[in-house]
Amino acid sequence: MSVAQSFYEEHLSTLEQACEAVRDRGHWTPYPEIPSGKIYGETAKADGAAAYQAALNQHFALLGPDAIGTTGVEVSPYTGELGISYDQYESGALVAAAKAALPAWRDAGPQARTGVCIEILKRLNQRSFEIGNATMHTTGQGFAMAFQAGGPHAQDRALEAVATAWLQTSNIPTSSTWNKPQGKHDPLVMSKRYHIVPKGVGLVVACSTFPTWNTYPGMFASLVTGNPVIIKPHSQAVLPVAITVQVCQQVLEEAGFDPKLVLLAPEGNEVGIAQELATHPDVKVIDYTGGNNFGDWLSDNAKQATIYKEQAGVNTVLIDSVTNMKATAQNLAFALSLYSGQMCTTPQAVLIPKNGIKTDQGQMSFDQVAEFLCNTIKKFLSDPDRAAGVLGSIPNPATVQRLDQAAGLGEVLLESETHPVPGFEGSVYRTPLVLKVSGDDAAWQQEQFGPISFLVEVEDTEQGLKLISEAVASKGAITFGVYSTNDQVLDNAEQVAIEQGVALSCNLDGGVFVNQAAAFSDFHCTGNNPAANASLTDAAFVAGRFAVVQSRRHV
Amino acid sequence: MSVAQSFYEEHLSTLEQACEAVRDRGHWTPYPEIPSGKIYGETAKADGAAAYQAALNQHFALLGPDAIGTTGVEVSPYTGELGISYDQYESGALVAAAKAALPAWRDAGPQARTGVCIEILKRLNQRSFEIGNATMHTTGQGFAMAFQAGGPHAQDRALEAVATAWLQTSNIPTSSTWNKPQGKHDPLVMSKRYHIVPKGVGLVVACSTFPTWNTYPGMFASLVTGNPVIIKPHSQAVLPVAITVQVCQQVLEEAGFDPKLVLLAPEGNEVGIAQELATHPDVKVIDYTGGNNFGDWLSDNAKQATIYKEQAGVNTVLIDSVTNMKATAQNLAFALSLYSGQMCTTPQAVLIPKNGIKTDQGQMSFDQVAEFLCNTIKKFLSDPDRAAGVLGSIPNPATVQRLDQAAGLGEVLLESETHPVPGFEGSVYRTPLVLKVSGDDAAWQQEQFGPISFLVEVEDTEQGLKLISEAVASKGAITFGVYSTNDQVLDNAEQVAIEQGVALSCNLDGGVFVNQAAAFSDFHCTGNNPAANASLTDAAFVAGRFAVVQSRRHV
Repeated sequence: MSVAQSFYEEHLSTLEQACEAVRDRGHWTPYPEIPSGKIYGETAKADGAAAYQAALNQHFALLGPDAIGTTGVEVSPYTGELGISYDQYESGALVAAAKAALPAWRDAGPQARTGVCIEILKRLNQRSFEIGNATMHTTGQGFAMAFQAGGPHAQDRALEAVATAWLQTSNIPTSSTWNKPQGKHDPLVMSKRYHIVPKGVGLVVACSTFPTWNTYPGMFASLVTGNPVIIKPHSQAVLPVAITVQVCQQVLEEAGFDPKLVLLAPEGNEVGIAQELATHPDVKVIDYTGGNNFGDWLSDNAKQATIYKEQAGVNTVLIDSVTNMKATAQNLAFALSLYSGQMCTTPQAVLIPKNGIKTDQGQMSFDQVAEFLCNTIKKFLSDPDRAAGVLGSIPNPATVQRLDQAAGLGEVLLESETHPVPGFEGSVYRTPLVLKVSGDDAAWQQEQFGPISFLVEVEDTEQGLKLISEAVASKGAITFGVYSTNDQVLDNAEQVAIEQGVALSCNLDGGVFVNQAAAFSDFHCTGNNPAANASLTDAAFVAGRFAVVQSRRHV
Repeated sequence: MSVAQSFYEEHLSTLEQACEAVRDRGHWTPYPEIPSGKIYGETAKADGAAAYQAALNQHFALLGPDAIGTTGVEVSPYTGELGISYDQYESGALVAAAKAALPAWRDAGPQARTGVCIEILKRLNQRSFEIGNATMHTTGQGFAMAFQAGGPHAQDRALEAVATAWLQTSNIPTSSTWNKPQGKHDPLVMSKRYHIVPKGVGLVVACSTFPTWNTYPGMFASLVTGNPVIIKPHSQAVLPVAITVQVCQQVLEEAGFDPKLVLLAPEGNEVGIAQELATHPDVKVIDYTGGNNFGDWLSDNAKQATIYKEQAGVNTVLIDSVTNMKATAQNLAFALSLYSGQMCTTPQAVLIPKNGIKTDQGQMSFDQVAEFLCNTIKKFLSDPDRAAGVLGSIPNPATVQRLDQAAGLGEVLLESETHPVPGFEGSVYRTPLVLKVSGDDAAWQQEQFGPISFLVEVEDTEQGLKLISEAVASKGAITFGVYSTNDQVLDNAEQVAIEQGVALSCNLDGGVFVNQAAAFSDFHCTGNNPAANASLTDAAFVAGRFAVVQSRRHV
């Protein structure tokens, strides 16, 4: 039995459970999200921290074509420069190396590729603490979030993509017999073969905020369907991706494949390799998460490739009425604060009727709701340890600058405060800025990336829904939350969600937040509004990555 | 039970068999291809002819928005002007009508839509003789081919698309319960709903040669996934599409849906409505079969839509050695002649090593093979009835002109002859022109649409494979045939097919021809070379037509 086949056998139960989860869409995960020594091993936390520390100020060695230089500009918002250098490569050499690795990977078939990919995920899971540290110091997320989002949650999303790709490719038989009756004559009988063939070389252009979570789905979907993958990491968030590539290369080599099936294409503050790679004729699949400028550029220029992209959007919450004002405000306070509003799923605008809302505390005016929410946020973030853990520390100066300039966009209800991060001298966290604007104000209808929240005064619930519908249609959105005790309002909100292609969360006032999407159960993005042209993980996300090539002959 | 639901129940067995056929890819069809009174009813042939005759010189009424005029320029190559007029509409009004019909169709769900679509196919099948006549007189195909390709074979391809779309949409549960354990605390429990939501309005830009066969897959895939469909027929081949739209509108109306879910957008010799529709912001899915000019234009301009297209290509046959020269030549003679070489799957070039090939008749030189093949074609087409039935009559003067000018492209081995079509005064058929060129000649590597065949003298089998590989990569191809008694040559050809994404047929010397693709079994196109970016019918062909929109709330 080949090594790849033994990986497949070993992980068959995981694969089968993942496929069942994809079909049933209930809760399931093989990668525990709790960063506990009881689960990951008593020394896992210390080992992960030590592995991260050992990588600092060193060269991070990976396999690739001949290097043409080194780069490394990562800065931790907690501890300063990482000092890690990575080899840089010429774009043509990267594609050539990936292409050379393609035939054997293609010919190995879906089973071998799926086995190898799940083994990669198993080993990535074992390095979750190390990846958690790397994610924390590159993205600025607090450690608990960095561990979860960078480790097990990203691994979940990867396995979901593996399972979806497996389901779609294993649907196609490897052969068939075609037997066509010919009346009194002998039937026409043909033997046919069907080959799963990748589109070509895959490129993933990763983002700075979720370097693994947003990279893994496209990467693993491409790999299972036979495409080698080149990952261009964001210059500020290379390490979590580099560790991933390292694990991939190790497992691929063990399984007898060319480790250069997965390649890192880092660059520093210069710009160009993503463009070169994206327009290379052999690059046929591109996954991108980031701003609209480069996303639009890709659509205009990378015409040889199928592009899966997630761009900017304006996520909203509409409050019509609530059964538990305190729980609602606590839920929203967390949703708005988490990772300083830098999630692609963070609500940016909370729309509230100008005449106020019905609550368990009686009718509350717009201003009372606003005050209650701001006070809840203040209280929630009053403990510095908790605040720093939830908010993290913003690594990108442009985001801080945007935050500082945003106070002019409306009436300031809650100022953004700056506080030191406990335990990290010189590092700060920023609390959310909350602004009041009117429904017709353009400011809330434009993505304001970072801890900038708008409380939007609207005429009534109906106008709120209309404004949300228009904002999603024109600017895109990934999430939409609604609070109402009125079933008709919930139905109307669901209708807006269906029309505009945005995921709806109703009356979240417990331990689930509008910005959280669970792998295997929640589809992340729909592909039906400008925020994204793809969904994690639906059939379209994997089906465009491969073709079926057949041959036939008489028996 | 709703009418749509009763259609679903009635056709459930057909649907289940179609799904099984899609998965197994053996031979299966519910629509008999033999134009026999025993199958279709003793009066079916006469009724179909009468129905066709009754449509001539009349206005063909369909439902649509307010008409802005009429058009009708169809000319039968057998009998002259059809004299049928069709209403014309303003593009914006068409899209508005389609969009207005969308919500109820979307909300009816995949089961109702699938039931309605299979009922439509049942009724189209009943009108196969009428559609056969309409196809014959618009495309110029002989009646037997027009009946099969325009009727049951098109219906097969449609049902294949219905089944594939059904499999992909019914994969998604309509709801789920997400139950996440919280250690000692109560679990987090959410109820989730998943809605299949169409991308928007679908547009099919149909071709003149196979107005139903190439239209149905995209049309039915769009309908099952919830998209209304506007069909822009080729001005020369409206009637088969108009009959189709009529049947759709009748069944939709019976089932209580807006009949304007399927609309015809005819135009005469003026040009513009396809462009207007293709760039309308609400048109989100486009299916196109035709030349590269408009295909490239679509990719450059219809950026709001997912485009599935089939364009020009260069199909090839390589002869390395044969076990039965006579049977091989007979098979190729039919393949090259059928419908005057106007199939997108017709081989254009037959590559033969300059030192000749091994056959059951001993070693034959290039010239001997060429002579044998030309003589076989001549003999096959020596009977005027058979010749006219196989070749049909070319309706497009540009194709005739191309044929007449093509004699200068190489050494003429077989001249194209002009003969009267028996039974149709003034109508002619053209026999294939066969030219000899060398491997490095550019002429055979460019699509020459029509009955123009090249016998290409290559150095040897290896060079032949290399030339084919290059031609497919640069110009695209749908089919590739190889003849060899050497397994290594067949393996090498299969490798070329895999690398270049083209379907391979090996040693066809019986009743299957390289240009025929069987629904449910053969994938038509791969999407992996310039001839097409999509495949009939793989998952990608349906998955890009819908999104999943979800909602969730605590239980």
